[in-house]
Amino acid sequence: MATGTSMQLGMVGLGRMGSNLARRLIRDGHRCVVYDVNPDAVEKLETDDGATGAASLVDLVEKLEQPRTVWLMLPAAIVDSTLDELVPLLAPGDTVIDGGNSYYRDDITRAQQLVTQDLHYVDCGTSGGVWGLDRGYCLMIGGESEVVNRLDPIFKTIAPGAGSVEPTLGRDSHAGTAADGYLHCGPSGAGHFVKMVHNGVEYGMMAAIAEGLSIIKHADAGKATQAVDAETTPLRDPWAYQYDIDIAEVAEVWRRGSVVGSWLIDLVANALARSPELDEFSGRVSDSGEGRWTVLAAVDEGVPAPVITTSLFERFESRQLGNFTDKIVSAMRSEFGGHAEQK
Amino acid sequence: MATGTSMQLGMVGLGRMGSNLARRLIRDGHRCVVYDVNPDAVEKLETDDGATGAASLVDLVEKLEQPRTVWLMLPAAIVDSTLDELVPLLAPGDTVIDGGNSYYRDDITRAQQLVTQDLHYVDCGTSGGVWGLDRGYCLMIGGESEVVNRLDPIFKTIAPGAGSVEPTLGRDSHAGTAADGYLHCGPSGAGHFVKMVHNGVEYGMMAAIAEGLSIIKHADAGKATQAVDAETTPLRDPWAYQYDIDIAEVAEVWRRGSVVGSWLIDLVANALARSPELDEFSGRVSDSGEGRWTVLAAVDEGVPAPVITTSLFERFESRQLGNFTDKIVSAMRSEFGGHAEQK
Amino acid sequence: MATGTSMQLGMVGLGRMGSNLARRLIRDGHRCVVYDVNPDAVEKLETDDGATGAASLVDLVEKLEQPRTVWLMLPAAIVDSTLDELVPLLAPGDTVIDGGNSYYRDDITRAQQLVTQDLHYVDCGTSGGVWGLDRGYCLMIGGESEVVNRLDPIFKTIAPGAGSVEPTLGRDSHAGTAADGYLHCGPSGAGHFVKMVHNGVEYGMMAAIAEGLSIIKHADAGKATQAVDAETTPLRDPWAYQYDIDIAEVAEVWRRGSVVGSWLIDLVANALARSPELDEFSGRVSDSGEGRWTVLAAVDEGVPAPVITTSLFERFESRQLGNFTDKIVSAMRSEFGGHAEQK
Amino acid sequence: MATGTSMQLGMVGLGRMGSNLARRLIRDGHRCVVYDVNPDAVEKLETDDGATGAASLVDLVEKLEQPRTVWLMLPAAIVDSTLDELVPLLAPGDTVIDGGNSYYRDDITRAQQLVTQDLHYVDCGTSGGVWGLDRGYCLMIGGESEVVNRLDPIFKTIAPGAGSVEPTLGRDSHAGTAADGYLHCGPSGAGHFVKMVHNGVEYGMMAAIAEGLSIIKHADAGKATQAVDAETTPLRDPWAYQYDIDIAEVAEVWRRGSVVGSWLIDLVANALARSPELDEFSGRVSDSGEGRWTVLAAVDEGVPAPVITTSLFERFESRQLGNFTDKIVSAMRSEFGGHAEQK
Repeated sequence: MATGTSMQLGMVGLGRMGSNLARRLIRDGHRCVVYDVNPDAVEKLETDDGATGAASLVDLVEKLEQPRTVWLMLPAAIVDSTLDELVPLLAPGDTVIDGGNSYYRDDITRAQQLVTQDLHYVDCGTSGGVWGLDRGYCLMIGGESEVVNRLDPIFKTIAPGAGSVEPTLGRDSHAGTAADGYLHCGPSGAGHFVKMVHNGVEYGMMAAIAEGLSIIKHADAGKATQAVDAETTPLRDPWAYQYDIDIAEVAEVWRRGSVVGSWLIDLVANALARSPELDEFSGRVSDSGEGRWTVLAAVDEGVPAPVITTSLFERFESRQLGNFTDKIVSAMRSEFGGHAEQK
Repeated sequence: MATGTSMQLGMVGLGRMGSNLARRLIRDGHRCVVYDVNPDAVEKLETDDGATGAASLVDLVEKLEQPRTVWLMLPAAIVDSTLDELVPLLAPGDTVIDGGNSYYRDDITRAQQLVTQDLHYVDCGTSGGVWGLDRGYCLMIGGESEVVNRLDPIFKTIAPGAGSVEPTLGRDSHAGTAADGYLHCGPSGAGHFVKMVHNGVEYGMMAAIAEGLSIIKHADAGKATQAVDAETTPLRDPWAYQYDIDIAEVAEVWRRGSVVGSWLIDLVANALARSPELDEFSGRVSDSGEGRWTVLAAVDEGVPAPVITTSLFERFESRQLGNFTDKIVSAMRSEFGGHAEQK
Repeated sequence: MATGTSMQLGMVGLGRMGSNLARRLIRDGHRCVVYDVNPDAVEKLETDDGATGAASLVDLVEKLEQPRTVWLMLPAAIVDSTLDELVPLLAPGDTVIDGGNSYYRDDITRAQQLVTQDLHYVDCGTSGGVWGLDRGYCLMIGGESEVVNRLDPIFKTIAPGAGSVEPTLGRDSHAGTAADGYLHCGPSGAGHFVKMVHNGVEYGMMAAIAEGLSIIKHADAGKATQAVDAETTPLRDPWAYQYDIDIAEVAEVWRRGSVVGSWLIDLVANALARSPELDEFSGRVSDSGEGRWTVLAAVDEGVPAPVITTSLFERFESRQLGNFTDKIVSAMRSEFGGHAEQK
Repeated sequence: MATGTSMQLGMVGLGRMGSNLARRLIRDGHRCVVYDVNPDAVEKLETDDGATGAASLVDLVEKLEQPRTVWLMLPAAIVDSTLDELVPLLAPGDTVIDGGNSYYRDDITRAQQLVTQDLHYVDCGTSGGVWGLDRGYCLMIGGESEVVNRLDPIFKTIAPGAGSVEPTLGRDSHAGTAADGYLHCGPSGAGHFVKMVHNGVEYGMMAAIAEGLSIIKHADAGKATQAVDAETTPLRDPWAYQYDIDIAEVAEVWRRGSVVGSWLIDLVANALARSPELDEFSGRVSDSGEGRWTVLAAVDEGVPAPVITTSLFERFESRQLGNFTDKIVSAMRSEFGGHAEQK
């Protein structure tokens, strides 16, 4: 079921994403040399999927034919140290792809450094999560056109393809690769820039969905009895909040025909079908960099982005990072009104 | 291609939504008596689609067999006056469905009034827009179980059906109608409550997408020359904002395999394929009630909804409703710093 | 040191605010008949301050000369039940002042009801907290002009007076009472409307100050060691966050000459001088109604109020009311990326 | 009326702030050598205030006794080019103070560079605007303790002094200079860091006040007639928005005794007394850097700052910087619902 020319690629970093990218490439007829600091991950991919294992970066480089292509799928924090080790092993004409979540500014710097050694650098934002193995990954690519074009068979394999999604009305069907799920966005950094903002949008969409379902969940607020004191406002219209609505069913019904239909709604439906109260979660939501960088870009550009920014701060709040702020507000209330905090 | 029992229904209000609902019902084997203040709309549906036209509400009621079902598809502002006229014409056992965007609290009041005359009232939030005729409409329904169950063939026809969407993992496939795109959410008002919040979520998702694409659009901010004065902050890193990224292509690539994949992204791709600069729009965004009511519900319930609320206020800002606020800020800056406004 | 005509007033509700209002009136030569459900509070005011105690509402009304003036200083939740008991005891021409934090819409309703019995109703928003006894209270008043004018000596006594604040430039010095700290804002409800928004503004100002001091407090963020994993973004510029800044001193220096100088900054300085880490607070911030109502008014009016609204939601977050929202976001992250929550 | 030891200082940049700082220093017995690219500004200060004029930076440096102190009061964008010219003229032991609105990170870099030439660098955030000449300026200072201590007489003169503000309760009256309105906040950059956040707080407070007064201004919303169409939500309770409230009087009454009492409220009262409708303003609000940097710091630190950030974005919106975002939202509404924009 190969989609085109077979190529060889070195994959460094065999976590969730790296392993599945290698698998998807191998399944489509490409050859992968794989390396990870954890030898078990290497062995598993060798045994189960037919990858060629490497015992070290040196070994990986030696097993790749020139011009080499090395795909890094690593936490952003260790890309630079890996490059420090990898780059001296490479030869002119070789290419490094950073498929992780690097800050796009680092791409610009790295590409400038690599070009001095006749090496190529491609940044590739990769979206798709644990589902990408079967569903394909959406790729947002930055770098030199010639290099990106040469690597087209790899990107084509990793991307979802046109699939079952209907064509965009009025779009020229020969207008490039975007309709196959991968896009050369521009020069170095452009791929990670678009991926960064993609994640910012993702934060905002997730927050909107979560807030909405939470409002529906609490449509029974009028059933609670109300304290009567100067610190608490009684609900004026308890009769209007007497609903017990099953939000798992709401998520399910929104999957079809509604304006909010989306993959995120599909996933919420999955989660709620399995766990209606989501008791296995505490509600501490991480943020992994792109949301923050999106806000910085919006501020630099002077583009208002209150929704995306608010969704980032909501994640901070979920981890109680605003606690000292709250204490100051409590302190002010205590000072001017003698208000004590409620338990 | 009828999906079940054929029923008869009266449709009042033949705008975009009402006409298409009637058409979809007729195509699936139901019979529709239709009325609108505009006789051309009635005639068109009679001629083109095989509806039975009515010249007045009296005529519509007379042409319906008992127990009657009358679906109102009207602007929220005229539902009550229409009910004032319609209700006296109905007989015990008849049902009125409000399929528009009424405030759920009005549903509660109306249902209480109608029940005193042995009439039934069903509120039905209807999402799907101009695409619903072919795609089906997502229905969120409130009212008495017995009545909602009796009308099941009508809802089933209007809803999208399970369609090409994959089943939700772990969901009991016999668990009700939500997987067909319609849901009985609870007693009177519950349908419009869920639809109201649906639209709040829609506002937030739309804003997140729009902000993100706008940030990408302005990734060329470093190319602009910068004024040097005490009022303007120069961009510190113009080198980092040198991209010309085609957001139509970005929207296209996000349609497949990405976490933000959604119907809204599909629609943005449509719009940008046709009009890359969106010059035909001025940017004045209406809000039609549900967003506001969602915020009121969040505040009443004590559920933080900063993302949805911010997206509502962004719409207000798009219509310059914050202009006086801005003037006050300008006045303060002038007072303390002698700052003049820039042109 | 009486500022004018001596009047007689009945005070109902001898909490923090009610007691001090009575004291301030008595000190300025007015006569107060006081009542509270707690007889100790009555006795204390009788013994220490020379008030006339009342054993019941009946007793209070009997001890007041006609036309009577009764000031209610009660939690908003019990004003209506108190009025139910009080109103039948009054005689035509009597006036009830609600000095608490009632919703202004209730004022409109109550005034309409009382006028049918030839009674007058005045709503009076009262700001000043525990400091008002000495500092005076800022009064925002709604009701009939004639009645408000007749009660002028009472309002004048309670208000701060022109004091040490410099006159507003360009303001006609004979232009009314606002420069003395009390204002007839308009008909019934106008006083509480202005007080409601006042508190909304207060929420926003408090949040801005608290966020800012918290950012300064965390200017040492670069000193923390950083985890290296795909879930955590390392701080890019730890060298830029190496400050240990004493925020008590910052609050102190902002008190004089700065643009943010304000009574709230004075109070923060007090609180931090006494307790630099604010350890006695947990950070659970109550909201007592006016903030919520301000948001509702902004939404109704179509006036964007994102700052005030955000400050309200920040209070909700401080009480973990967004926890279920956060769980949904965590569930989505788990679904698409296999992300586990961090501890 | 000298407050202490007389010192000599060079002032570079004689705009609003620089001129008044020089005047305030001279009035208190210090000697100032002043320079500006505009010779008229130099001459005016020489003639009217007794400063010593300089025709160039060379001239200024020659007229200063060693160790020299040069205060730069310049737009942030030209500080570096001025330093490039100035620094070679200085001698070991000389000090440069940047009193403008530089980004604190630049202070760190500059201090590191200057120390290699045995020069000292002090960053000094200066708040007070056009009122500072008489009222004094609040100073937030960063740099080496020894240098800051040596310059104490200069800071003491510029700062407001304890003035008429009441002492902070519980604060040790010998606890440093903050109670006089100036504070050594920490090493290089700490002064501008605190000033940066100060301005962020200022943005938030201004926005809260402006939003609140705007909500009061629009309390007459119920008087407008309402369109009846599917795009517009009629106001449900027009009876509740029938007030014509004079916001100039509201600002005036809030000046005394209320919780929101502040210098900003004083200034709003000034502005509204002169111009009740603020017609001379268009509502385009500039932002001059510190607000943006405060947001970047909050994001870097992981401290939620939704209120301050929202106030920044409100300024962006006031300048229509979100217009493309709005167009995208309009485009989506057109796609799914056939909604046309309203005029």
